[in-house]
Order: sequence, then C-alpha cells, then structure tokens
Amino acid sequence: MAAGRVPAAEAMERLRHFPSESLGFATIDHHRALRQGQPEVVFCAGKSDEQVLAICTRLLEVGGSFFGTRATESQAALLATRFPRLRHNALARTVHLAPEARPEPRRDPSSEPLVLVVCAGTSDLPVAEEALETLWAFGHRAEALSDVGVAGLHRLLAATGRLHEAAVLIVVAGMEGALPSVVGGLVACPVIAVPTSVGYGAAFGGLAALLGMLNSCASGLTVVNIDNGFGAAAAASRILQRG
Amino acid sequence: MAAGRVPAAEAMERLRHFPSESLGFATIDHHRALRQGQPEVVFCAGKSDEQVLAICTRLLEVGGSFFGTRATESQAALLATRFPRLRHNALARTVHLAPEARPEPRRDPSSEPLVLVVCAGTSDLPVAEEALETLWAFGHRAEALSDVGVAGLHRLLAATGRLHEAAVLIVVAGMEGALPSVVGGLVACPVIAVPTSVGYGAAFGGLAALLGMLNSCASGLTVVNIDNGFGAAAAASRILQRG
Amino acid sequence: MAAGRVPAAEAMERLRHFPSESLGFATIDHHRALRQGQPEVVFCAGKSDEQVLAICTRLLEVGGSFFGTRATESQAALLATRFPRLRHNALARTVHLAPEARPEPRRDPSSEPLVLVVCAGTSDLPVAEEALETLWAFGHRAEALSDVGVAGLHRLLAATGRLHEAAVLIVVAGMEGALPSVVGGLVACPVIAVPTSVGYGAAFGGLAALLGMLNSCASGLTVVNIDNGFGAAAAASRILQRG
Amino acid sequence: MAAGRVPAAEAMERLRHFPSESLGFATIDHHRALRQGQPEVVFCAGKSDEQVLAICTRLLEVGGSFFGTRATESQAALLATRFPRLRHNALARTVHLAPEARPEPRRDPSSEPLVLVVCAGTSDLPVAEEALETLWAFGHRAEALSDVGVAGLHRLLAATGRLHEAAVLIVVAGMEGALPSVVGGLVACPVIAVPTSVGYGAAFGGLAALLGMLNSCASGLTVVNIDNGFGAAAAASRILQRG
Amino acid sequence: MAAGRVPAAEAMERLRHFPSESLGFATIDHHRALRQGQPEVVFCAGKSDEQVLAICTRLLEVGGSFFGTRATESQAALLATRFPRLRHNALARTVHLAPEARPEPRRDPSSEPLVLVVCAGTSDLPVAEEALETLWAFGHRAEALSDVGVAGLHRLLAATGRLHEAAVLIVVAGMEGALPSVVGGLVACPVIAVPTSVGYGAAFGGLAALLGMLNSCASGLTVVNIDNGFGAAAAASRILQRG
Amino acid sequence: MAAGRVPAAEAMERLRHFPSESLGFATIDHHRALRQGQPEVVFCAGKSDEQVLAICTRLLEVGGSFFGTRATESQAALLATRFPRLRHNALARTVHLAPEARPEPRRDPSSEPLVLVVCAGTSDLPVAEEALETLWAFGHRAEALSDVGVAGLHRLLAATGRLHEAAVLIVVAGMEGALPSVVGGLVACPVIAVPTSVGYGAAFGGLAALLGMLNSCASGLTVVNIDNGFGAAAAASRILQRG
Amino acid sequence: MAAGRVPAAEAMERLRHFPSESLGFATIDHHRALRQGQPEVVFCAGKSDEQVLAICTRLLEVGGSFFGTRATESQAALLATRFPRLRHNALARTVHLAPEARPEPRRDPSSEPLVLVVCAGTSDLPVAEEALETLWAFGHRAEALSDVGVAGLHRLLAATGRLHEAAVLIVVAGMEGALPSVVGGLVACPVIAVPTSVGYGAAFGGLAALLGMLNSCASGLTVVNIDNGFGAAAAASRILQRG
Amino acid sequence: MAAGRVPAAEAMERLRHFPSESLGFATIDHHRALRQGQPEVVFCAGKSDEQVLAICTRLLEVGGSFFGTRATESQAALLATRFPRLRHNALARTVHLAPEARPEPRRDPSSEPLVLVVCAGTSDLPVAEEALETLWAFGHRAEALSDVGVAGLHRLLAATGRLHEAAVLIVVAGMEGALPSVVGGLVACPVIAVPTSVGYGAAFGGLAALLGMLNSCASGLTVVNIDNGFGAAAAASRILQRG
Repeated sequence: MAAGRVPAAEAMERLRHFPSESLGFATIDHHRALRQGQPEVVFCAGKSDEQVLAICTRLLEVGGSFFGTRATESQAALLATRFPRLRHNALARTVHLAPEARPEPRRDPSSEPLVLVVCAGTSDLPVAEEALETLWAFGHRAEALSDVGVAGLHRLLAATGRLHEAAVLIVVAGMEGALPSVVGGLVACPVIAVPTSVGYGAAFGGLAALLGMLNSCASGLTVVNIDNGFGAAAAASRILQRG
Repeated sequence: MAAGRVPAAEAMERLRHFPSESLGFATIDHHRALRQGQPEVVFCAGKSDEQVLAICTRLLEVGGSFFGTRATESQAALLATRFPRLRHNALARTVHLAPEARPEPRRDPSSEPLVLVVCAGTSDLPVAEEALETLWAFGHRAEALSDVGVAGLHRLLAATGRLHEAAVLIVVAGMEGALPSVVGGLVACPVIAVPTSVGYGAAFGGLAALLGMLNSCASGLTVVNIDNGFGAAAAASRILQRG
Repeated sequence: MAAGRVPAAEAMERLRHFPSESLGFATIDHHRALRQGQPEVVFCAGKSDEQVLAICTRLLEVGGSFFGTRATESQAALLATRFPRLRHNALARTVHLAPEARPEPRRDPSSEPLVLVVCAGTSDLPVAEEALETLWAFGHRAEALSDVGVAGLHRLLAATGRLHEAAVLIVVAGMEGALPSVVGGLVACPVIAVPTSVGYGAAFGGLAALLGMLNSCASGLTVVNIDNGFGAAAAASRILQRG
Repeated sequence: MAAGRVPAAEAMERLRHFPSESLGFATIDHHRALRQGQPEVVFCAGKSDEQVLAICTRLLEVGGSFFGTRATESQAALLATRFPRLRHNALARTVHLAPEARPEPRRDPSSEPLVLVVCAGTSDLPVAEEALETLWAFGHRAEALSDVGVAGLHRLLAATGRLHEAAVLIVVAGMEGALPSVVGGLVACPVIAVPTSVGYGAAFGGLAALLGMLNSCASGLTVVNIDNGFGAAAAASRILQRG
Repeated sequence: MAAGRVPAAEAMERLRHFPSESLGFATIDHHRALRQGQPEVVFCAGKSDEQVLAICTRLLEVGGSFFGTRATESQAALLATRFPRLRHNALARTVHLAPEARPEPRRDPSSEPLVLVVCAGTSDLPVAEEALETLWAFGHRAEALSDVGVAGLHRLLAATGRLHEAAVLIVVAGMEGALPSVVGGLVACPVIAVPTSVGYGAAFGGLAALLGMLNSCASGLTVVNIDNGFGAAAAASRILQRG
Repeated sequence: MAAGRVPAAEAMERLRHFPSESLGFATIDHHRALRQGQPEVVFCAGKSDEQVLAICTRLLEVGGSFFGTRATESQAALLATRFPRLRHNALARTVHLAPEARPEPRRDPSSEPLVLVVCAGTSDLPVAEEALETLWAFGHRAEALSDVGVAGLHRLLAATGRLHEAAVLIVVAGMEGALPSVVGGLVACPVIAVPTSVGYGAAFGGLAALLGMLNSCASGLTVVNIDNGFGAAAAASRILQRG
Repeated sequence: MAAGRVPAAEAMERLRHFPSESLGFATIDHHRALRQGQPEVVFCAGKSDEQVLAICTRLLEVGGSFFGTRATESQAALLATRFPRLRHNALARTVHLAPEARPEPRRDPSSEPLVLVVCAGTSDLPVAEEALETLWAFGHRAEALSDVGVAGLHRLLAATGRLHEAAVLIVVAGMEGALPSVVGGLVACPVIAVPTSVGYGAAFGGLAALLGMLNSCASGLTVVNIDNGFGAAAAASRILQRG
Repeated sequence: MAAGRVPAAEAMERLRHFPSESLGFATIDHHRALRQGQPEVVFCAGKSDEQVLAICTRLLEVGGSFFGTRATESQAALLATRFPRLRHNALARTVHLAPEARPEPRRDPSSEPLVLVVCAGTSDLPVAEEALETLWAFGHRAEALSDVGVAGLHRLLAATGRLHEAAVLIVVAGMEGALPSVVGGLVACPVIAVPTSVGYGAAFGGLAALLGMLNSCASGLTVVNIDNGFGAAAAASRILQRG
C-alpha cells in the first residue's frame, strides 16, 4: 500500500482524537483518513485565499501534509510564500505539501501497480494533470499517455503495450469522448472515463462526451463528472487500496 | 450515372408538363426529378393506407415507378395487393416498385462507385437497411458491412480493405456513436454518419450518438438526423451524381 | 480468479482460432474472453427470438456457455425449450446457461472477495438483480442489501458491518440518487453507482439520479448508465480480475 | 409574532393610504405588509445604484425601514454613505436598515421558534447567509449549522440535537443536493430545501441539486429556486407567522 | 395535533421495538411515526399486487392502519377483497384503511386548521385529490377549491374569503403554472405549489409549470415534484404538526 | 364582426347574470363571451365522456351553442347521440354545435376578411384542420393551402396571389419549421406560426420547429404552442375582432 | 395608416428601382418597404461600427431614414457624430434617424390605435423600451404601463381601464412569465407576449418565461423570442397595418 | 486533384518515415496526408502561443506548409513575426503558410469544380470565412455568396445561376437555420449545412439552427457542428477528392 494513504501509527493515533473540527467557515473531516484511507482534500474553488491558507495550515498541523485542487494562481502564491516546499502544478491547478519524511518504501517502485492516464488531445491535458497530481499525492505510481485520439488510431495502437502494463486506466477525452470505448475494448483492467469540457457548439460544455461515455458499447467502463480528474484519481485509489 | 436517377428523355418531357399536382391532401412534386435528379419519395408515416396508395399510383402513372419509406405492414400489404411486383423490406420499412424496363446499363456494374453502409451493431440494422434500399432504388451500387462496433476493433480493422474500396461511406451507430470517428480517421472518402435511437437511459433516444457524431475529432464527417437512413442515402446520391 | 472468467486451456486454444465469426446479422466476438477475461454477453433487446437463439447456440458450441441480458419473456421461453438447464431470472430479465462442469474451485468460497449490491428501494430491484445475475454468471461472489434508502438512515447504518465486508460496492438508486454519496462516505472500497429510472415527474427517466451521482460530494465514486446493472457488474468484475 | 413583521398600528394606518406608489421606473407595493405580513423587499440586481437609493429612501420614509437582496458592492456603498446605520453583509449581498426603535420584545427570545439554516459545504455559505439575513430582517430567531455534507455523516449526526430544536429547517446544498433527503428523514418539522449553483460540469449551474431535491425520497420536503436563500426565508416566515 | 398522526401510547410502545422489519423485498420503516409523526406510506407504483398486499397487511398488524398512493385498479381490488373497510379513491389512486377506533377528537373540528387545495383546471383534479386523501388520512381538515385558473380571474377573486380562512394552501396547476404566483400575492399563509403534467407540446410533461413555480415573483412559495399531490400534503402536515 | 362572436342582445343579457357556474368538477366561465368576445371552448382531453356531455349541455342551454377541441372518438359519439346536428371533424378532433338560427349576415361573405391556413406537409393537416374548424366556429371566413413546404419553393410561389388575399396567415409546419420564415418575408399581414410535432429523431416532438419559428429571421412573426391549431385560430380571431 | 410605414410616392418610386443592393459584407433589402410596409431595420449586434455606419448611411440615402436595434454605445456614438439629429435610447439600445419632413398627419393622434406595452418588473424595462422605440419609429402610437407583476394584482387591476383602451397589447415579463395569462383573460384585443431573460437559477435565461407563455391557459396569446421587444413591435405593426 | 492535397512524391516519401511524432505536449500525425489526402490542421484554441509556434514549425519542416484554425490575435502575431509570408484572416481566425512552390497547375482554374459558400446573414461571415480559407488552403476553388437569408427570397432566387454552377454547396446560417432547406430544394449537388451560434434567446447558442438543419424537409442535406466552418470545408474536400 502506498505511503500517502497509510499515515504512520502515531499520526493515526492523533487523528483518532480529532474526528472533525470547526474553523467557523469550514468543518474539517480529520476522520476521513481512517474511514477511507485517503486524506481530506481541499477543493479551493469558491474559497478566499485566507480560507484556503487556514484550512491547509490546520491539515498540516494535524496530518503532516495537505493537498488541494482547483487552486487559483493567487491561492497558490499565498501558500508558496508560507510553505516554500509547496509543489504547485499550474496546469493542473493543484497544490501539494508532501509529508516531510515519507515512510520507507516497502517494495520496489517498479513493482507498484501502475495507473496510466490516457489523454485524447492536447487540450485535455489540464484534466489529465489533475488526475496525475492527485495520484502522486495519494502515493500511487502514475504515468501519462497523451494525444492518442481515435481519429488517428495508429497512435493508440502503437501504445498497446503500455496499456496492458497498467493496473487501472484513466481515459480523458473531450469532444465526442470516444476514446474510452476503444481503449475499453482492448484491455481487461478497470477503465475510468473522464469527459472534458473541451469542444464547442454541440459539445455543450462536455455533455456530448459525458453522454458518449455513459453509453459506451465497451462493457464495464465507469464514468466521473465532466473535468473531474481528481475524482477519477480518487476512484483509482479506491481500487488500488483494495489489492 | 445510375439508371434510376436519369429518367429517359420521354419521361422527362412528360414530367416537364407536370411540375406539381394536387391530390387534395397532398401536392406531388413531379418536378423534383428534373431539379434534383432524384424522384419524389413517399414518406409514409402519418398517412392513411389509402393516401399512400393514391400517391404511389399517381407517381407510377407519371414517372413509371415509386419508392416509399417508413411504410407500415398494413400500407405495404395494400400496395402489394395492388402491385404484385412490389418489393417490400419489412426490416427497412421500405416499399419499391422499380421501373418495368430499366435502361441498358451503360457500364460494367463492378466499375460503378460503391456506397458501403457500415453498421455498429445488430440493432442498428433497420436504419442501415433503409439506407441500402434507398440507394438501390436510386440506382446505386451499395453493400453492407455489419456489427463492427469500436469495442472490438479487430472486427473493423479486418475490413479495412473494403472500407478503402468505397466511394462513399455511410456509418450507422447508436449508443455512443463512436464508429464514424474511427472510420473517418482511416479513409479519405466522404463519410456520412447516421446516429440511431439504439440504446437506453442516457442515450436519450439517439441524442448521445447524435452529439458524439457532431463533435467527432475526425475532420470532414457530416451527420444526418437520428435514424435517418434515407437521408444518408440521399446525401450519398447527391455526391455520386456529381461525379 | 473466478471460474467463469478463466476458461480451461483447451477452450482458450479453440477460441484463439475463432477471433470473430459472422452469423450474417451479427459478428460474434469470440476473442473477447482472451482479450478482456469476460465472455461475450448477448444484449437481447431489439433482436428477434430466432436471432437470440442462433447467437446463444453458437456461443455455447464455441465457449461452452452463454449469458444474455434484457431478454423478453418470449426469448427466454424459446431458449428454455431448447436448453432445459437454462436459468431465467424474469425480474432481472437475464438468461444464463452455465458451463456443464465448472473447474474445481481453487479456494474457499467465503474467502472470495464479495460484491455487495446495495439498493435504495423495492422498485430498484430489477436493476440490482441484473447486476447480481451478471456477477454470478461471471463467477463472482455477490449478495444483495435492499431497501436502505437515505430517508431512513437507521436502516443503512444498521448494515454498516456488511458494507465493510465488501470488496466492491454497487449502489443502485432512483429518484434523487443520494444513496451512493452516503455509502461512499462510509467505506474505503470502490463504489460503483447505478442510477435507475425509478421516479416520476422531474426524475426525467433517471436523469435526476444520474446527475446526482455524477456530482456526488463523496470522492472517488464512479457512475454507469441509467438502469445499467450489467455494466456495473462488468466494472466490478474488471476490478476483481485485477487482484 | 416578531416585531419586523407587525408594524405598529400607526404605521399601518399610514400604509393603508399608500396602497402602491409609482416612482416612474418602479411601482412600490406599500400594501404588501398589510396583505402578507412582510414588508416589500428590494431585489437590487439589474437596477442602477440611483434606482436602489430612490426606492430604499421612499420605503424608509413610508415604512421606517428597508431590506434589499442581491446588492452590489457599489449599491451598498452608496446606501452606506446616505444611511450610516446600514447593515451590509457582503457575503450574503444584503442591505438592511432596521427600524430605529423596535417595539418591546413581547416574550423571551429563547422561547421564540428557531429557524436553523443547515449548509452542506463552505461554498454554499452565501446562499445560507442570504437566508439568515432575511430571517433576521423579518424579525425571526435564526441560526446556522455549516459544512455538514452527507459524505461525512458523523458531522451531521453529531448535530442531531440542534436539528430537533428547530421549528423550521432550511437546508442549503449544491452538487448532488442530497442533504435535505437525509435531514428530512431525521426530523418531523417543515424542511425547505435550497439548491445552490455550487459545483461544475454536470452540476449544470444547480440543476443537478434542484432535480435531486424535487425527487427526494424523504416525504414532505419543499423546494425553492436555485440560490434562492431569500425565498426559503420568506417561506419559513410564512410558516412561523401562522403559529 | 390530529388523530392519525399520533398513535396511542400503546401502539407507540410496540413500534419502539420494531424500528424496521424486512419482508425480503422491502424494509418497512415502522420507526417513522415516532421520528416524523407520520405513518409510513406505501408507494404502490412498480410493486406487484402481492407485494402491496403483504406490506399493507404487515403495517396494519403493527400500526393499526395503512395508506397507499399510486395504487392501480388491480392492487386496490385485491386489497378491497381482503379488507372490506378499504377506502379507494380511483381518481386519486389512493387506498386507505383507517384505524378501527380513532381516539376521541380533542377539539371542535371547525377549529382545526384548514388546508385548502386550490386547483387550476378540471384536468388537475387527480393530483388535487391525492393531496386531499393524504391530508384526510393524516388526520387533517382539508377542502378543495376547483377550476379557478388565472385566465378567468373573477372565479379566483370570488373565492378570496375562503383563501384567507386557510392555514396552509396547496395550489395545483399544470400548463404555465401561474396560479400559485397570483394566490401567493393575495395571502400571508404558507403556499405549497404543485406543478402537474397537464398540457401538451412545450408543456414538456409538467416542466413548464415546474419552472414557472420555481421562478414565481410572489415571494415565499415552495414547490414539490410534478404531480406530487402526496408530497404537498406531507409538507402541509409537517407545517401543521409544528403548531 | 362575425356572427358566432356576437351573441344576440338577449343571450348577452342572460349571460350577464351567470358570470360563472360550478358543475362540481368544473367552473364554467359564461362571462367570457362578454369579456373577450369569444365563447368558452371545451378542452375535452383528460375529461370523461360524461363530463364533456354535461359541460356542453350546460353551455348549450345558456349560450345556444358549444365548441370543443381534442375530442376523442368516444366523446364525439356520445355527443352525436344526444345532439344529432353535431358537426364532428375526426381529423381535427373538434366537435361543434352551431346556434340554431344564426343572425342575418350583415355583409357579403366574400368581403369578409380571410384567414388563410397554410400547411407545410400532409402530416400537419390535423393541426391545420383544428385551426380551420375553430375559425369557422368563431364565425370567420377561413380557407386552407396545403403541402407547400419550402423544399419545393415553386409550390409556394405559385400560390403568392392567395397569400396576398389573406388578412391573417396561420402557417403550420413540423420538422424544421421553416415555412413561416419564407411566408413572413413575402407578405405584410400578421403571420401566426404553429409548430407541429411532425418529425422524428432530433425533431424532439416539435421542439425543433418551435425553436426555428421563435428565431425566425422574418420580423414580426408570432408563435403559439406545439400542435396548438386552436390557439392560432383564437389569436387570429382577436386580430379580426379588432378591425 | 401611420406615416413611417407609408413612404411618399416619390420614395416608393425610387425604391422600386433598388430591390436589393450589395455592400460587400451585406445585402440591403430596399424592397422590403414595398413588400411588407416596414423599412429594413439594422440588427447592429455582431457588426463593426463601420459596417453599421455604412449600412445606415446607404439606407438614409435611399429611403430618407434608418432605425437600428441592439446598438452598442460605441456604434451609437459614431452614428451620433455623423448624424447630429440621431435619437439614441441607451436603455433600449436603439438608434433612429427619422425622416426630415414627415408627411402631414392625416388624422387626430388621439384617434390613432394605441399599442400598450405592459411590463411586469423594473428589470424588464430594456425589452419594453425596445418595443416602444420600434413602434414609434414605425409611426405608431404607443405607451408604457410598468411594474404591474401578478404578485401584486391590485396594481394591474387598477390599470384595467388603460388595458381596454389598447388596440394591441405587448406584455413583457421575465421569471415565471405569468402576466400575459392574467392580462389575456381580461381583454379581447390581440396580446403579444415577450419573455425576458430576467431571473436566475431555474429561469434558465428566459426559458421558464418562454415555456410559461407558450402554455398559457388564456387562449389566443402569441409569443415571440426571449428579449425580442423589436419582434413584438413588428408583429403589432403587422396587425395595425391590416386595419 | 488540387495541389495542396497532393504533396510531391518526395515529400510523401519523407512523410512515410514519420508516421507520428511526439512534441511532448502533442503527437503530430504526419501520416494523415497519406491516409486522408489532407494535411494535419492545427486547432489553435486552448493551446499556448508557444505550443502553436512549435507545432507549426515542425509541420513546416516536414511537410512544407501549415494551416491553423481558431487562432487568437496573439498566436497569429507570433507566427507572423517568425514567418513573414503568413496569411492571417482575422475574421476567419485562420493562419496559413502555403508551400513555397506549388506544383504546376494541371488544368485551367475555371474548370476546377467550385465550392460555393452561401451565407444567410452578415453575422455568419466568420464561419463562412473559415470555410473559405480552409478550402483555399486545401487547394480548392471556392467563392462566397453572402447575406441571402430566406426572409428576402428574391436575393436568393436572383443568385440561382451561381447555385447551379457549384459542385458542392456549403450553406451557413444561424437563428432558425432555414436557408439550407430552401437551397437544398433548388439544387441537385451535395449540400453541407453549417449552423452558427448567431442569434439570442431561444437560439440557445446555435441549437435552434442545428435542430432545424437536422430536420430539414429537403432530402439529402448533411450537417456539421455549430460554427464548424472548417469541418464543412473538410467534408467538401472529401467529396471533391473523390472525383
């Protein structure tokens, strides 16, 4: 099991006594790591810079790390000033402060199960990156395979080998969202489809891709919300945690 | 140019004097064959059996043939009683009475341009058949390639040779409607995509397939209405007529 | 790995030489078991009784079993006449002919990972049953937990123990589709949400439940199409196959 | 009955002679307090700063107070310059000028019926605050319970005591809008559900939450428009006025 | 408090020991009367006649009565055979078996608060009747005011007196759903709006009326699902229970 | 002014004393003829045969005639048994009992303003007929021009003369609903557009035609609900009444 | 007939020789005044300032006046610089240059038929003003009645006298769009309903008001596009031109 | 076959060895010219200026030219600085660097088949221009016919001669999108309909035009995505390539 998902016994003991905590404007669920094996993640959209800083600071004090999604440039800048070790991926809009001392890796990294994040077009990259950053923050091995849309099948077929290496596939696509159907027909592992809002006109902000994925003729695909790279990563983490 | 689309000079001369004709409940556009190279086609849905018989009888008297789509079993039975030579395709819901003596074929059939009607699943067959019957009634060479959905790519790739033989491709698919995107990326010829109402739940009666095809990442595809096999065939006929 | 998903070496060898086969109206993908570890499943809706019989017969000859979903009473009756061993679940609308001699179970059934199919209301049962039958046909251990909708939380909380036993949860709900959010917050394992068309008025045939599940505030849920119990089971099978 | 809703006899007498009054761009309904027990409230959106000032000034002259919703920063600033006693809640976007001398409270505040405004997430706070400010302006006792979304049920269950104290519950939630279903199953009092536009992708600007609440499996919930904190408060006031 | 909503102390004590009970296909929530003051109501749609009979029989044994909505003719007939005292309103599609001996009325019926169910057109009557039957089953005083749509205002204005007598108004309307806006502007009491699916074309099955009511310019209206007469009655009951 | 719209002075005097009348299940608005110059029209859909008979009988007693729309075959048969003079148009689904003795026509019929009901296709005829029957029942001069859809412009242009004769045009079209735009550009008189539910697939039950007409590039068109031939006729009657 | 709609014989003669004229980026339809009795109107949205100036200049040269809708501040400023007599209504977003010398009025203004533009709320004023300016530019007598929404019926009923003076009513309303139903039930003259995009949440940019008006229970209303004050005025002009 | 679509043999040989190439953020499909006869086109939207420059530079090195759509002013400026020969059409938002030395024209330009881009209104010009620039970049003969909307039919009918000259028609229209239906009824050649987002209110960003075109009563039309001038041109190119 990956490091980020299994806090050391000491941290767990501390958490047990803080099931939830009110900051006035927010109620932090410190209990989630125990209940679900994943730390609470800060959804930064719609929060003020100061609120994000306050929540992250408290999560750090209690759990030793924090991770946030949909962070604005301004929120990230404020956090970076306060925490120089901060990792900020501007494309993914994520902020991460990893634990200072991760526990010793218990096994060879290359034997870790791989989550491959497959991406139809260049414009889908922000969503794919959000998934990658989340997976890394949760302690998983994850890699990207980009710009392999179905209109040029040879690009995808050339990567068949990598597809079969993966334990879980996250497939990110906008416009008609056909990539998961094709990928799902090629592999036996779990496939999580992420529609994106890439497109225009009758794409209706990702609706076309979403409907396409829900109606896939490849059986056993599952789908998350439009542009929800984080959710796909969290779903992959639930799967890997099971192993 | 195919026989059905080019009435003999005599028939044309007769038509020229009948630009349109009122049957009271309908105004027949005898002029269409001159203006568009295709005979008027009877859309049988929503008409009584007697109305369909009256319209077909008048078209036969003036033009020497008739062709109808969306015919009910009952309409077809009435026509068959009256016209024993009637061709009725129950799956396609078409009725056709071909001209008694087609003009001599002017060239080797195998040199005629081919319209290939590609079909994602067995349930899409009624729409594909409507396209085929229309193409045949309009005098074109047309063939089917069935059940080659994208979830089993090897079935489609095995047929690449036939795809490249075609002058025009009609690609029929329900559910997520991804097949035209994949086919469109493999060939250079015109591709006409037909969404079908096959599917359930979030397929919303063909909406998912329609949106998927409109947003295809393969460039230069065009789309017709849901379940409109006739329209796709008419569009293919416009293209072939040009050559 | 479960029995139904791993055909004996002999059957695999035979399959290898039948990658796909045309029945005229259908192209059977015998290769799927190799490629995806799951046998081809017959989607009976929109097929004639005779087509279903023909496809099932051929699948049986080649692979030793068949499984079909969305079977009508009439299709099931015809199959039962031909195959007296047929298992027909009328509520789930499934038909199954299991392999005559399943390979020896390799481990204690109770140690098999459990898929728990959780169901919000009595009216959601057909979808839940479709998921259960599919899981059993694919060789998995699966059980049901019914009528534990969120308006009476004590019914769900009383079952917390069973929720934690499961390796994968399939949560089936119509109307507002809130059950997966509550369940997802209680467990760490993968949760597959299935919206159903149960409801009326602004339920819009399952749209309300679908949107609710896609927007769940519980992280890491994934969603399949409305009423798609089969798809959820196939997704669960992909996850278990990984282990 | 609370002070703000029952103008003194003198004020009522004055109002009786001003049933409605035209400012040219607006027709003020001074009669509403008599007819409905609530003063006319200014919906500031789409009005110029000067129009808002003119309407508020006239309401103050006639009724001794005013209350406005959806006020911009600029509108609030202009009003504050003119009326130094103005209460402006920037998060709620409300402006309030209370009557100078409220009538003596006729009973112990703690015996007043309580409206509890329950809120699923931090991002729903502006809508919850609009409800709170409206309730206070209408003279009711109202309190907030924040960030108790259903994905962490223990936060809500910990507050069961406060839920049962309330005479009316206003439950504010975005995303899938499941909180009112869970709350509605726990209490017997009236529950008014307010969907918010919080969320992204398939949240469709609050549509997912709205549909979820309309289809709640908890019986007897009622729903107001998306983000309509004011409307929920006005509905609660109608209920309390009855008692 | 009305009789039907307050089971005798003995019945309550029995219920306390039956918080919920599984019939295999259903989990009965006997606890609801304690928690919410209203008995569990059977939603008959989508259940077999035998399931409805089994559930009603068990509710009767434990609580001394039952009430069901959306009952088919066939379900009602089976129940009537078994329970000759059954009250069946075919228009409302409700079935009710009242407690044999209702507790003594504690006050003069005419002093009971009145719920007035106002109805825009004759076609809306089934929904209005469902509301009335529910209110009566829950022990409330309820009356109807029919066919007072806004296109003939004098019919509504003539009934102003009755509108002001009501403690709670339930306003039922299809088509454009304007009646609640007009009524809401005339009275101070709580108004619950019920959109119906009456209409055609762009009424979209009640969507037009639903959107109209959600956007009402009369403040403090609340809305329930399309055709949900039961839900409106349950909401009214929550309000009256408060007093 | 036409006869049917101006009841004789005697009838008006009687009506004045019956402003509205309750039949229990319906409230008849006898006052409408005075207020709006048009008699109350019975919308038969959703009413029982007996209710329709009762309402029509009462309207006849008070006003000397009745007119109903959306009548079923069964309702019409019952009325015809009772009133042998009944005019029933099965295609239009209307029933009409004209006044026994119409007042003397005050002017030459051919000098009456003409309402021309223009119709795109044969399938739109039921809606066009409903408009015609309504106009005739209201005492107007009305004629039909059928099957002049825009795909064969010469049919429409050939009728330009008749278009210019009309005082008001009602243009009925399904599918893409383009006919009103073309007609509206040719004439100066009022044009009322009626979308119909004719079409399939992305016609979405008349939505495509409705949206097309609302967005017409021809200025000054107005639109009524899908399939609302009656409403278009009533609007034309309001216009003619003005003159 | 009003002046602006009937150009003098001389101007008509000039127009007859300019049926249409290309400016490269636009084709001006000088023929419209002859064909429809209304001058061509410039829809300024989406055109550059220079394009608007060029079109207006040419219309002025040929017809002696111009009128434009949806003009930006910048377009209006450029026109005002060039044509000092320009009338610019910033709220309505219209620009108008009237003919220098209008023909002598042929009758007493007060005997002209009146178009009354009725408006539900202050926020609907821009749309109402666009209708008024268009009517004035077309030479009609038009007046406004503002802020008489249905939630305060006494405001509307107080104006009944003015409603009955009007020859045509244009009723403008956002939110639930109920005002035309109420007005339509009070008067016999033509009523043109204009939905506006005023509202939020489930108003969906005017969709709620549009659907409400299309489904009005008041018969004979007609509807134009959302926010289309110009279109309503043009429809009113078609009606008045008839008289 | 046109020059731009058939690279010289040398270039083809080079391409054959570069089937696809990764730039890290993008995978260029150099193989497309071979497979589809059209060079890869850069969709600039959502890419940084530097990414566009890098992709274009590489395409130029390998294939001797590049073409991009949806280019921002800033992207175009950067490319123009680097490639002074760049053709930038700001209205169409296209950038094009033609091959330095085009192969000798093999036939008289006037004998080339013509693509006529027909445009309903001035506001549709950007989409029409995108189609024209794409056609020119692909080496086709293409011309425009502007502002011939159906509300002024004489403008379109005056151009009938030019319509009949065309080998393929691209018809661009917003609002109700009726132009393709009318044009499609006049000509026999292929007609590709392009809905645009021009319009407001119930145009819903091009949805009205899209639905109108999909439901056209003129047979054999095909449709592309809203505002997709490029796609229509690519479809026309597929058709011409066939000849």
